Amino acid sequence: MTGDLRVTDVEVTPIAFPDPPLLNAAGVHQPWALRAIVQVRSRDGLVGLGETYGDAAHLALLDRVAPALTGLDPFNLSDLRSRIAAALGSADAADRHGLIGASSRSKTRQRVLASFEVACLDLQGQVVGRPVCDLLGGKVRDRVPFSAYLFYKWAAHPGAEPDEWGEALDPAGIVAQARAMIDQYGFGSIKLKGGVFHPDEEIAAIRALRDAFPDHPLRLDPNAAWTVQTSIEVSAETDGLLEYLEDPTATIPGMAEVAAQAPMPLATNMCVVELDHIPEAFTTAAIGVLLADHHYWGGLMQSTHVATICETWGVGVSMHSNSHLGISLAAMTHLGAAMPALTYAADTHTPWQLGVDVVEHPLAFADGAVTVPGSPGLGVTLDHDALSRLHENYLKAGITTRDDTGYMRSIDPAYDRRRPRW
Amino acid sequence: MTGDLRVTDVEVTPIAFPDPPLLNAAGVHQPWALRAIVQVRSRDGLVGLGETYGDAAHLALLDRVAPALTGLDPFNLSDLRSRIAAALGSADAADRHGLIGASSRSKTRQRVLASFEVACLDLQGQVVGRPVCDLLGGKVRDRVPFSAYLFYKWAAHPGAEPDEWGEALDPAGIVAQARAMIDQYGFGSIKLKGGVFHPDEEIAAIRALRDAFPDHPLRLDPNAAWTVQTSIEVSAETDGLLEYLEDPTATIPGMAEVAAQAPMPLATNMCVVELDHIPEAFTTAAIGVLLADHHYWGGLMQSTHVATICETWGVGVSMHSNSHLGISLAAMTHLGAAMPALTYAADTHTPWQLGVDVVEHPLAFADGAVTVPGSPGLGVTLDHDALSRLHENYLKAGITTRDDTGYMRSIDPAYDRRRPRW
Repeated sequence: MTGDLRVTDVEVTPIAFPDPPLLNAAGVHQPWALRAIVQVRSRDGLVGLGETYGDAAHLALLDRVAPALTGLDPFNLSDLRSRIAAALGSADAADRHGLIGASSRSKTRQRVLASFEVACLDLQGQVVGRPVCDLLGGKVRDRVPFSAYLFYKWAAHPGAEPDEWGEALDPAGIVAQARAMIDQYGFGSIKLKGGVFHPDEEIAAIRALRDAFPDHPLRLDPNAAWTVQTSIEVSAETDGLLEYLEDPTATIPGMAEVAAQAPMPLATNMCVVELDHIPEAFTTAAIGVLLADHHYWGGLMQSTHVATICETWGVGVSMHSNSHLGISLAAMTHLGAAMPALTYAADTHTPWQLGVDVVEHPLAFADGAVTVPGSPGLGVTLDHDALSRLHENYLKAGITTRDDTGYMRSIDPAYDRRRPRW
Repeated sequence: MTGDLRVTDVEVTPIAFPDPPLLNAAGVHQPWALRAIVQVRSRDGLVGLGETYGDAAHLALLDRVAPALTGLDPFNLSDLRSRIAAALGSADAADRHGLIGASSRSKTRQRVLASFEVACLDLQGQVVGRPVCDLLGGKVRDRVPFSAYLFYKWAAHPGAEPDEWGEALDPAGIVAQARAMIDQYGFGSIKLKGGVFHPDEEIAAIRALRDAFPDHPLRLDPNAAWTVQTSIEVSAETDGLLEYLEDPTATIPGMAEVAAQAPMPLATNMCVVELDHIPEAFTTAAIGVLLADHHYWGGLMQSTHVATICETWGVGVSMHSNSHLGISLAAMTHLGAAMPALTYAADTHTPWQLGVDVVEHPLAFADGAVTVPGSPGLGVTLDHDALSRLHENYLKAGITTRDDTGYMRSIDPAYDRRRPRW
């Protein structure tokens, strides 16, 4: 029934798209967000799409693996794993995002695997004539809910024009941002990226959000900027305000200490980022919610396994997001559709794309959710003109590695990266 | 690309095939083994196959669910789950095999789901033109190893002719059985079903097997016939002889007590039989090996999730087997091919089928392993004449429920079912 699906070539295109000056515990987003677009072509002319990290170290790994995929049967994900393992050998690329702890060979492999696995599933779905969610066990929901993802931010990058979102450096600014984002996307829950200001200021922002949006579940994520003691204090002060507190402090033992006293569940996408972390975290009840992210959990199929693990231990599931475009959004939507255990609206950076995308008709938000596409594969089509433009951006951007701290220091030489900061 | 796959009808056919008088902790196998063959037909004429339990209580559930599957898209396994849940309601059918503990609504659903999920995957594979293992992540091995599965047995059922395997009631008989089975199938490891005689006799049989087969890994499975103390004593006496000791005693706490002192890993297919059991069992280190069985773990896809859970906790994986025919063997082979974590040869009752099957060309054993079929779907075709004959058997067998203890009592009225017995 299927034609000759063997992979003839794999193209990896680094791209850059404008990123607003979003503040976080590590500094501030650079003017360009980097991604890589993966095209896996089969002998009978189909193309599977993937979207992944675009920093130089990751690109080098993708470029090392890509030629090794010629001849791959995209239905044989085990063979994909084997080829990647063989091509990578002992490669251990530091994760320049700095959010998921020390790099390791296994983490490196999972990131690279995910980059190509999504494209293989897109190919599979096209051949089968089925949406990717049907390859992951079928959809349990027709619409995948996402959360508003608020950031403290400057009005503009230094020397540039203000972006459409404007400044948000205090509770009023955060509430205004939330209102604009919810007006446009209809999000039904709200996450604030914290770790930027003193916890008291961020608690004040949460209170302001609660006043302005009495029915929206709220989350706060300081990216491990706090000590255990600070985390416990903040959790007490936000009792009743947060559906979960995300990564208040670093390490599984630290989170376990906080969790033992916090009135709300703790969530993480930082201290539990591969299978090996799960037993300790679950046994010590360090987390109540895992923010899955197929980009580093080895792809969509492995992420469904992870969701079952969470369900088995009674741990909730949400989804983490880095700056991304429409291929990743489609992949997240199919995964979110196929995970029975998705208990919280997923994160997305979509509003921060400022309308830029690499697909022709990006999946749309309505009432804070994305309707799961029923068309074959991921259900999105590459916009080749946009890809060219975004690749041109990459070539001219002068950035090959994400470095929020370095960029902040270029603006404020006194900036001191500390974790924990409070 | 796919035609109209919607399910038009589902046929469930109870069958019976001759079963030798195999002894176990509950009594002795009746002269007929019961199964049910599931045929899920799609609008464009394809048929997906499944094989499951054939006892009356399970059949009643299958018959209740079958009509509810009309119109199902077999790629939407989530919809399959929903339809089954709706059709079953609060049904809670006792498991008459008596091996996986008290029945529950969730266990009931998982058993029924598995019955149809395999048939849906067979359909999917046929449509896609891919073997089922490719729908489970692709095969990590070309050949799935199985283990010789020895039983104490009588030469014949009372009043019947001896079967081809003859009597095995002492160490010499067991060694002879092993030799005959290994000569025919080439198995590279050996499991003895125990719990029949005093542990000393079964230890003697293990020693005899070790002498006769110095290089074959050995296993002993008394089906929880022993107390914790007896289990600990047997484990000490078989130190160095067994690759694992299977279900020496009942309950997760009991197994944990034994495991704390046993020199070899403990395996189970009795005390960990659904997701809810895993946290306690893994946290208390009660087991070192899980014998997965897709027939009650909710099907093949869920079983791959379970294997990932085991891998995450460093728990080994093997596969459990009840009396079965060639559809189940094919399903187990695809699952075994697609589980990276399969660390031990799987169990199979194939040699006890006495050559009877319900498929046209059963998968063959060579050197103790089954080569994973590359043809679409499960890779086996229903033999309709055989199905008719086996259904005739069912109608004339006079058995509608498995009852090893009742059958034993019909022969030996003094037989007393006790657990633990020693």
